[in-house]
Amino acid sequence: MYPITVEEALKPLVQTLDAIGTFVFALSGAAAGVRARLDLFGVLVLSFAAANSGGILRDLLIGSVPPASIRDWPYLTISILAGIATFLFHPKVDRLRKPILVFDAAGLSLFAVSGAQKSLAYGMDPAPAMLLGMLTGIGGGIVRDVLANEIPLVLRAELYAVAALAGAAIVVAGEVTRTPPLVTSIAGALACFALRMAAIRRGWSLPVAAAE
Amino acid sequence: MYPITVEEALKPLVQTLDAIGTFVFALSGAAAGVRARLDLFGVLVLSFAAANSGGILRDLLIGSVPPASIRDWPYLTISILAGIATFLFHPKVDRLRKPILVFDAAGLSLFAVSGAQKSLAYGMDPAPAMLLGMLTGIGGGIVRDVLANEIPLVLRAELYAVAALAGAAIVVAGEVTRTPPLVTSIAGALACFALRMAAIRRGWSLPVAAAE
Amino acid sequence: MYPITVEEALKPLVQTLDAIGTFVFALSGAAAGVRARLDLFGVLVLSFAAANSGGILRDLLIGSVPPASIRDWPYLTISILAGIATFLFHPKVDRLRKPILVFDAAGLSLFAVSGAQKSLAYGMDPAPAMLLGMLTGIGGGIVRDVLANEIPLVLRAELYAVAALAGAAIVVAGEVTRTPPLVTSIAGALACFALRMAAIRRGWSLPVAAAE
Repeated sequence: MYPITVEEALKPLVQTLDAIGTFVFALSGAAAGVRARLDLFGVLVLSFAAANSGGILRDLLIGSVPPASIRDWPYLTISILAGIATFLFHPKVDRLRKPILVFDAAGLSLFAVSGAQKSLAYGMDPAPAMLLGMLTGIGGGIVRDVLANEIPLVLRAELYAVAALAGAAIVVAGEVTRTPPLVTSIAGALACFALRMAAIRRGWSLPVAAAE
Repeated sequence: MYPITVEEALKPLVQTLDAIGTFVFALSGAAAGVRARLDLFGVLVLSFAAANSGGILRDLLIGSVPPASIRDWPYLTISILAGIATFLFHPKVDRLRKPILVFDAAGLSLFAVSGAQKSLAYGMDPAPAMLLGMLTGIGGGIVRDVLANEIPLVLRAELYAVAALAGAAIVVAGEVTRTPPLVTSIAGALACFALRMAAIRRGWSLPVAAAE
Repeated sequence: MYPITVEEALKPLVQTLDAIGTFVFALSGAAAGVRARLDLFGVLVLSFAAANSGGILRDLLIGSVPPASIRDWPYLTISILAGIATFLFHPKVDRLRKPILVFDAAGLSLFAVSGAQKSLAYGMDPAPAMLLGMLTGIGGGIVRDVLANEIPLVLRAELYAVAALAGAAIVVAGEVTRTPPLVTSIAGALACFALRMAAIRRGWSLPVAAAE
């Protein structure tokens, strides 16, 4: 169904990126749940949804079923731990709004890169792999905001999806030019992270259509 | 792709649980549609979505494609009949709010158990099977509320997802200890139902994070 | 996995219908994004989501993975072009509200027909193929409205889903009676289009449940 060797070779890389990304996104989901006054379990559900929806969507779309987030215990465990920590210590977490933006940018970078790598490993062409990398990065935030009944932030925030797309594009370009995956993964994640952080700090954003 | 024998052996059990659960959840979806002033067809769509989204999501995630809710006619037929009945007799249905809560708890119990059984039959490990059982139980209500533009009730209601998780956990524990599936299905459904009803009656709920 | 010959034979037909439907739905998604004051990238995401969610959902449900909208470049390209055009020229687009309703009805018709054809080609039974045809037609609009935080219009609009169902039903009836697919595709699309346009013009709608 897919080239075992490539997938196997990239597995440790994809899993490490995914684990760290899962943790930081779970924090953001749990924080949204606390803000919406959900109970402990609702907070854990939002925590899991924010951390894993992007990866689950990617896995469904590339035919990797059951999705890693459902099949492998680390994703669930990490999401629950992040959710409980946020639930217990949230005033602290809330005061740390700026660090959370940093973590969120890190998660976005890691997921965009791991999503593109896994899509390539499953035989996707360059353009779909870029698209799927971006989707892996932004999917969790979209589901989190839809469940919390808000217009998804990622459709509004400064260069959010653009940064994810840039990170995924670097990974795909590396595959096309046969650069080692580890090199392009680091380059892609750094580029995505730097672009997003610069956009936040300097208020960069894309144009909005002119009012009539 | 999966052990035919186990799946075949559990099929009648899963199908019966699913059919009854479909009916009671379709009633809840149709009632939400009537309340949102949708037309007849919109009511039927919400009716189908509430009754089948959990099972469809489960089937996509375990790789059972096309999902039973799409492939087999009983699910669609049952959903439509429940939707039409609600549309025609809704003042009665609406007055029966308390019985509906009972039916909804029954649907939750049946879906949590059938979802866990089917996931085990498709070779899922214990923890994912529990998660998928819970998701089968709560998925329909989440989609129903998102379509009706509300924060999903299941993220707020008294021990809703917790009860589904408990029912699924009993089924999974039974599988691990090789207890006959019929026994654990009944035990799991009763436990989920009792927990949810007790939570409603006595106002049990999980803690909400302390306000700052 | 599926009868290659039928699928291959219907491929050009399905692809042509899909391409035109993609363009007109992408216009509607982009217009919704401009109205919600999203930035350029957000507009493109809504554009893609409105144009492709129905087809992606259908492909996931019939087991055609990766979905054509992700795998084949025309869908993405068409969606982006329609999104950019709307972003640049939207005052014009917005003034053209009535023509857009016509395009939207055309997209609905084309997707309902292509969705039913592809489902039949993948071996679905008649009733599921009708359901999947309807879903392909209305899915994009539902996702667009959920992302824009509104109750989906298709659950309210005049005979919207009903028209899609009628178009899909004609395709399926043609398959059962062995009428050539091209004939039933044209008949189905015309019937859906005519029904939807007549419903708009004359304000036809289904009954809403009586107020209590």
